[in-house]
Amino acid sequence: MSRRWKSVVALSGGVGGARLVRGLARALPADALTVVVNTGDDFEHWGLYVSPDVDTVMYSLAGLSPEERGWGLADETFRALEGMRLFGEDGWFGIGDRDLSTHLARTRGLARGETLTAVTARLCRALGVGTLVLPMSDGRCRTMIDTSGDGTLTFQEWFVRHRAEPPVRRVWFDGGAEAAPEVRAAVAGAELVVIGPSNPYVSIDPILSLPGVHGGVFARPVVAVSPIVNGQAIKGPLASMIPLLAGTEASAEAIARHYPGLRAIVVQRGDSATSVPAWEEETIMRSPGESERLARAVLARAEALT
Amino acid sequence: MSRRWKSVVALSGGVGGARLVRGLARALPADALTVVVNTGDDFEHWGLYVSPDVDTVMYSLAGLSPEERGWGLADETFRALEGMRLFGEDGWFGIGDRDLSTHLARTRGLARGETLTAVTARLCRALGVGTLVLPMSDGRCRTMIDTSGDGTLTFQEWFVRHRAEPPVRRVWFDGGAEAAPEVRAAVAGAELVVIGPSNPYVSIDPILSLPGVHGGVFARPVVAVSPIVNGQAIKGPLASMIPLLAGTEASAEAIARHYPGLRAIVVQRGDSATSVPAWEEETIMRSPGESERLARAVLARAEALT
Repeated sequence: MSRRWKSVVALSGGVGGARLVRGLARALPADALTVVVNTGDDFEHWGLYVSPDVDTVMYSLAGLSPEERGWGLADETFRALEGMRLFGEDGWFGIGDRDLSTHLARTRGLARGETLTAVTARLCRALGVGTLVLPMSDGRCRTMIDTSGDGTLTFQEWFVRHRAEPPVRRVWFDGGAEAAPEVRAAVAGAELVVIGPSNPYVSIDPILSLPGVHGGVFARPVVAVSPIVNGQAIKGPLASMIPLLAGTEASAEAIARHYPGLRAIVVQRGDSATSVPAWEEETIMRSPGESERLARAVLARAEALT
Repeated sequence: MSRRWKSVVALSGGVGGARLVRGLARALPADALTVVVNTGDDFEHWGLYVSPDVDTVMYSLAGLSPEERGWGLADETFRALEGMRLFGEDGWFGIGDRDLSTHLARTRGLARGETLTAVTARLCRALGVGTLVLPMSDGRCRTMIDTSGDGTLTFQEWFVRHRAEPPVRRVWFDGGAEAAPEVRAAVAGAELVVIGPSNPYVSIDPILSLPGVHGGVFARPVVAVSPIVNGQAIKGPLASMIPLLAGTEASAEAIARHYPGLRAIVVQRGDSATSVPAWEEETIMRSPGESERLARAVLARAEALT
């Protein structure tokens, strides 16, 4: 008989993490899962506060994410974006019409003095998301990328505008933000922390960099799902970042080494790791059902740790 | 042979004025027409600066207005609005997705320090509008409505949110704005001023209330097109406002009396006026062609005045 989990915390960036999270939400009672989401990519666009990873997690949990691309909403239209391009405004970030209401509503809420945590809770409620989604911080912590050749860029400039092409020399976090109190409380009470298959440098490290969070997380049993499968990233620039930032080849083992104190790493069947136990599973999630299957496997394996 | 006009200024509110303006733009050389537009209805919505009459005039000149309703764009979608309603944000003002880009781009421009005049010129250029469209002011002048029973409301609150139902006791203009310098220059150089078939109290008076504008306008030959046809307003609450504010029945004559110094009033066939010459024409404009026909008739008649 499988364990009845009461408090699992998942750390998540965008797409990969969000796909695991939707599986965890199906595998766990609604009140047993808390998702802590990276906000280091947050930025202002068209005068609006955009929180890309929070949106991806929220939309994914609401069942509104497209399977074919990593961002935004399924069945989206882009009429406002067309207009903005016509008017000579920045058109490099693909905000859809429905998505736009999220950024407008969030910006209105923040302008009224709500915290990002409170606004996120309200948006989730409106979208029918029962899982607690916590932005890592109510302050600003911007992920900055020192590049070779293009200077220092914010994450979105580097990732979207420059298509993640400029080679990365260093990733750092600007702002000195604190973790949201809800995040600290959730981590402190976690039976298990699951690090989603997100980019460690630009999606998970921003969370762990907040004062007290790294220590709090690794005081709990922690497992990670490797975002590297057979030496490649499923999506995004991670595979090319590992050699530049860690000096090793992209591998599940490189991910395991990135997180000292990790108790186990979930790797794709056929992959391996040496520094911690490697749990082989099918880690590619092309549907909510595949997400749930992986989430249940991770939870079942993690029972041994707690 | 008809006169070659060099400098005609049209004063306009929303729909009615905009329909005449699109006709004047077809009847006159592009550099011979300047449209001065009411901004007393401007307001902030969803944190964006919305200038309803400027937009209606701009969209009308661009050939993008729907014939069936007075505001917004033809072939519009409302996905962002649906989202905003879902998120509990104000949904009473019908901003479409394409329209939203106008408000976003204008708000961005103002935030960068552009004047409303400069932003409007830029948006017009992008939409292919060759006519000079001038917001009446770069400052804020808010049209306020003292009502019986609902207190003092801004124009949009009264007109859209309360559907123009609360009886009007008084209309006044808050803010002490100045006319844009381009407006003063255009009026000073006008061979003819045409007051469009807009609501005198809430669409034209805000323009005339700006320091120096009333005197400048009535130092030139001025004709008005009556927004009252057979005792009724084509659109909007004007017919019910005239008895409350002028103490007379709604009629073309009431409009003529509202503008002392007027040289003539264009009235619907069968209507009349006594205080100034009444030029009978078909004044209902259901298509760009009907707008052009009326505009040509007004200009031909006005030759005698100058």
